[in-house]
This record gives sequence, structure tokens and C-alpha cells, in this order.
Amino acid sequence: METIFNDTYFMKKALLEAETAFNKGEIPVGAVIVTDNKIIARGHNLTELLNDVTAHAEMQAITAAANFLGGKYLHNCTLYVTLEPCQMCGGALYWSQISNIVYGAKDAARGCLHLQTKLHPKTKVKGGVLEAESAALLKRFFIEKRNLN
Amino acid sequence: METIFNDTYFMKKALLEAETAFNKGEIPVGAVIVTDNKIIARGHNLTELLNDVTAHAEMQAITAAANFLGGKYLHNCTLYVTLEPCQMCGGALYWSQISNIVYGAKDAARGCLHLQTKLHPKTKVKGGVLEAESAALLKRFFIEKRNLN
Repeated sequence: METIFNDTYFMKKALLEAETAFNKGEIPVGAVIVTDNKIIARGHNLTELLNDVTAHAEMQAITAAANFLGGKYLHNCTLYVTLEPCQMCGGALYWSQISNIVYGAKDAARGCLHLQTKLHPKTKVKGGVLEAESAALLKRFFIEKRNLN
Repeated sequence: METIFNDTYFMKKALLEAETAFNKGEIPVGAVIVTDNKIIARGHNLTELLNDVTAHAEMQAITAAANFLGGKYLHNCTLYVTLEPCQMCGGALYWSQISNIVYGAKDAARGCLHLQTKLHPKTKVKGGVLEAESAALLKRFFIEKRNLN
């Protein structure tokens, strides 16, 4: 029997976080951090509510995961995030030495891969998990926002 | 009479923050954010004490400044930081649209200029203010740390 704890399973959890952001009027990006098939941290974008450009989903999840682990390095951890991380989050992930980054939708303008942010040599990256769902939620947000203005 | 509120004046305040970090056993980097010749935020590196890679001096100062201003954009603000910001901090500064970044010592390995982190087109950068003092404090930290181990 195949384990249910695969990339799709955890990205769905990240998407739930993104939906929470959506419902708060935030650009809908969500993240979870997983080690040994256990979610140890969750985060969703809160830049508007907190008036803080650093309050990206990934940044909050990195801080929460380190707090849970009692150490700042996220070895043997995987970040699931619905959108390709930006330079800031990529830079934080570099310092964390996280083992894996799995993202949903691409960010061809501001993504850390596009902008060639240096990641840690220990870090593996995989994109495109629930890409359509992640991108659709973002698209819906911006359409609704445009119609409100 | 020349104003005392020049780059050297504010970088000295950032250096005081770096010394506070030093005294806590942290890599000594300090930062202040200034608008209209007024310091509106201070920060020093706390990555070890907080077990958090995101706790760089600049990140804390960005959050504190936005909190003070009641908005997430740091227009008409200048960051003074004793060490060239890293990719993470450079990425955060990109989002903040800060007007000026003034740094002390270069970071030829992990600095955002060296690694070509994209900064906001509105942001001007100046390096080398109290460079020797900023670099000397870092050097002293690493020498003392090596001698303790």
C-alpha cells in the first residue's frame, strides 16, 4: 500500500494555509514544514494584516519550525509552499540549510530560481506539485481584488 | 555649521547595536533605520539566542520601522547596517522599497551585492561608511570565538 504521506498530501496542507490567507484578504500563499512525515510548522502570508513585508508564509514557517526543533538548522526537513519562494525566503532557506523545497506555482517575475538566489548546496528543489491549484487560487485572488477596486 | 546627522553619525548608532550583539555572543551586526534624521528602528543580530536564521539585524529593524510607520513601505527611509546585507535581507529590502541602504563592511562571500540580489529600482546603495570599525568588530568576534573553542 502506498503511503498517503507524499508531496501531494503535504502540498494540500500548504494550500489550506493559502486559502486561510485568501480569506483574510492576503495574497494567498501557504506553507508547511515537514520532518519524518510530520508537519512541524505552518504559515500563511500576512504581509497586509501585519504591515510587514517580512511576513511571508515561508518566513513564519521557518521561524516556527526552528522553534519546534530547538535549533536553527532545518536538516531533514521539507518546505512545501504553494508559490516559488522569493529572494528573501530563498535567502532565509539558504541560512536554514533545509533539505528540500517543494513548491507549487512558478513565480517567473520574483521567484528565487528565476532571480538566481543562491540556495544551500544541501538543498534540493522540486516544483510543480499542485501547480494548477496553487496558481488558480492566486489568479482568483487578483481577479476578485481587481473587481473590488 | 555642518549637521551632526550624517552617515557617520547614524552608522555609529548601528555600531552600538553591533556591540550589543557582540556582548551577547552573536555575530556582531547592527542596524538602525532613519527617516527625517530620526532613528525609528534598531536591531542587532539575534540568530543564536533566538535559534532563528531570520533574526538578522536588518530584518528586525525592517519589521520595527514598518510597525512605527504603520505601513509596510519604507519610503524616505535609510537603513544603516554595519555589514553588507545578505540575500534574505536584500530581498526583504526589495519588498520594503526602502530609499537608501548604507552599509559598513563588505561581505564578499554572502553579501547581496556580490550575489546580485535584485534590489528595488527606487533604492540607492552606499557602502564603506565606518568600514574599518565594522570589519574590526567582526574580526575580533571570530578571533575570540576561535580561541574559546
